[in-house]
Amino acid sequence: MLKGNLIYGQSGGPSSVINASAYGVISEALKSDLIENVLVMKNGISGILNNEYYVENDFIEDLELLKNTPASAFGSVRYKLKSYIEDIHDFEIIHDFFKNNNIRYFLYNGGNDSMDTCVKLSEYMNHVDYDVKIIGIPKTIDNDLPSTDHTPGFGSAAKYIINTLMEINRDMAVYPRSKVTIVEIMGRHAGWLTASSMVAKQSGTGPDLIYVPEVAFDIDDFLVKVENIYNKKQSCLIAVSEGIKDHQGYFVGLNSDFKDAFGHNQLGGVAMKLGELVKAKLKIDYRSIELSTTQRAASHLRSKTDVLEAIEVGRHGVLFALQGYTNKMVTINRTSNKDYHIEYGIEDTFKIANKEQVIPNHMFDENNNLNDEFYRYILPLINGEYPQIYENGVQKFFKIKQ
Amino acid sequence: MLKGNLIYGQSGGPSSVINASAYGVISEALKSDLIENVLVMKNGISGILNNEYYVENDFIEDLELLKNTPASAFGSVRYKLKSYIEDIHDFEIIHDFFKNNNIRYFLYNGGNDSMDTCVKLSEYMNHVDYDVKIIGIPKTIDNDLPSTDHTPGFGSAAKYIINTLMEINRDMAVYPRSKVTIVEIMGRHAGWLTASSMVAKQSGTGPDLIYVPEVAFDIDDFLVKVENIYNKKQSCLIAVSEGIKDHQGYFVGLNSDFKDAFGHNQLGGVAMKLGELVKAKLKIDYRSIELSTTQRAASHLRSKTDVLEAIEVGRHGVLFALQGYTNKMVTINRTSNKDYHIEYGIEDTFKIANKEQVIPNHMFDENNNLNDEFYRYILPLINGEYPQIYENGVQKFFKIKQ
Repeated sequence: MLKGNLIYGQSGGPSSVINASAYGVISEALKSDLIENVLVMKNGISGILNNEYYVENDFIEDLELLKNTPASAFGSVRYKLKSYIEDIHDFEIIHDFFKNNNIRYFLYNGGNDSMDTCVKLSEYMNHVDYDVKIIGIPKTIDNDLPSTDHTPGFGSAAKYIINTLMEINRDMAVYPRSKVTIVEIMGRHAGWLTASSMVAKQSGTGPDLIYVPEVAFDIDDFLVKVENIYNKKQSCLIAVSEGIKDHQGYFVGLNSDFKDAFGHNQLGGVAMKLGELVKAKLKIDYRSIELSTTQRAASHLRSKTDVLEAIEVGRHGVLFALQGYTNKMVTINRTSNKDYHIEYGIEDTFKIANKEQVIPNHMFDENNNLNDEFYRYILPLINGEYPQIYENGVQKFFKIKQ
Repeated sequence: MLKGNLIYGQSGGPSSVINASAYGVISEALKSDLIENVLVMKNGISGILNNEYYVENDFIEDLELLKNTPASAFGSVRYKLKSYIEDIHDFEIIHDFFKNNNIRYFLYNGGNDSMDTCVKLSEYMNHVDYDVKIIGIPKTIDNDLPSTDHTPGFGSAAKYIINTLMEINRDMAVYPRSKVTIVEIMGRHAGWLTASSMVAKQSGTGPDLIYVPEVAFDIDDFLVKVENIYNKKQSCLIAVSEGIKDHQGYFVGLNSDFKDAFGHNQLGGVAMKLGELVKAKLKIDYRSIELSTTQRAASHLRSKTDVLEAIEVGRHGVLFALQGYTNKMVTINRTSNKDYHIEYGIEDTFKIANKEQVIPNHMFDENNNLNDEFYRYILPLINGEYPQIYENGVQKFFKIKQ
């Protein structure tokens, strides 16, 4: 049995539940006799490289509030390690840090890039024969990790997007005639979040059209559809993924057709560009709405399922590490959809690192619309409301002790 | 005692609690023996002009859900009546409608334009000696009506903005260095909503800079402040009202300085324009976020105080009408701030129609920042959370019976 200290870090883009995973890791680690101290990296792996980290005294007081706090409370990083054969420098620093601080458990919370960090670190620690259990904790609103049914962060972001789209829909319905409204949703390669808006559509209060990167975007077909819908109902709500691509695989946001239409490249994201197209070609006014960072940080509207699972993947990361597993990521396996039952498992991090899981073909119908299978897949993930803590009307957040 | 039917209508921009006022009106009207039938205009006053309205059977089943449904469930309108001396046509139609349907109570829910409708209608009904009690129910997220301490809709929109800004702040704090982030908030002439972000600032998780239309915007001073803040903390969050104006009183969004900087007028609102300025002059990347219609439609995050008061102004509208008052708007009078106590009163609609109440001078300090008085004013208005009803993770909304 490996006795020593545990260090936990957050990496990649934030989510509204990554700190719930931090809570799961820390609270479980504090219970174990094998783990003497719990350390947390400041800004992920760069914290180790810069010898910046937090100790229990810095976070123990507000620990419970981590569950209610969005974004990465300990700071994040987008630093990618090279392989140790290419550049050994970083690895030597990390190795020294591990030795000096008797780190025997390394838990890293993030997406596919973060799992790459786990892979490379494992290779080196194996190479130098330093015994440390390295476990990845999944996190990404994009839901694009393979080997897991879904990722913590996705359900809450999806729930926020669905309910916000419903509200935008109701707001549009107020006047007999409204602008074409285009809502831009995060997801550069995988369309899970944008696809989630089909739940709003199913409720009768959602977008008329949904565009994801998995289906090639055709400008002419888009204009025909918008015109038909607008002629029929004097209104058209569109959910579009920031990463939609044309038939050649180019991002629509960079398509030169937009430049041709106005003589210069426009500012703004794809929603504004599509809006300008609608205005120019169909002579209909538009409103573009970019949900921006609010969709990944909205701690005030989260899925209870998602928050509780985020805590559990953290907890299970510690449990798997204590069982001796290393170089694995915690996975969520759906064993039954009927009453939504899941189990936590593990998978080799190299099978996840740098890979992206897009929406599979079988979740689309013959017209490339999301089908019932997708609907049944997503429904449990947005289920339940996690009560937020307010004080005088504003959310109460975790703070690191100064 | 005047026996007859009541008609209720919604007008102007939607809010997340206007249907709570509709609930207050309808539920109170149903209790009265003097009121035989409750009718609701379709799209406000234009519903009467087009003879389109709803009867009890259309809305009675889902009545309770009105409290939980954003935007104007019965449709709104931005139609302004001329005075009857200028154009009698509309008034004759309305008069006929009133006679044909024995309308003796007219309750109109909206902002200063809607109160103008009440004034003009009262003048004409007085002129033709038709006895009808005309009562305005206040509604506007902009909080810009005179004669009332505040308006229903404001507290909820403010609460959404404050908490969303806190989340954006936390999201920005994740990396050691973040973009200058500019959040655009509604309010063309009055800055109440943007000013509310000072509550987020007070919590230590808010904007660094707040710009409202009440204070002339100085581009040079803005750039100096942004640069200083960014140099100090490698981050800068700015809350800006869509309606900020320069020293000459021109909207900054239309200022030619922006054109000079880039050779052509840019798309997007004032946040994007200020962002382009920051990028051009300070060479710092920016992110602009327009909260757009979500801030006025966010039924999922509302102030309990606001929802309950919205119901009450509706109820009191009926009660005042039954007491024989006419051509009045229901007002909210704060009688104590210590334990936040309010009373409902009435004021002549002509004192409110077409007028705008901006943030008064005494709510700013000597540096033109919002002061403690503003803070004490707004805190009770965002207090409490009104539980939303979800079904399978999505909000349950009122629907008119088909």
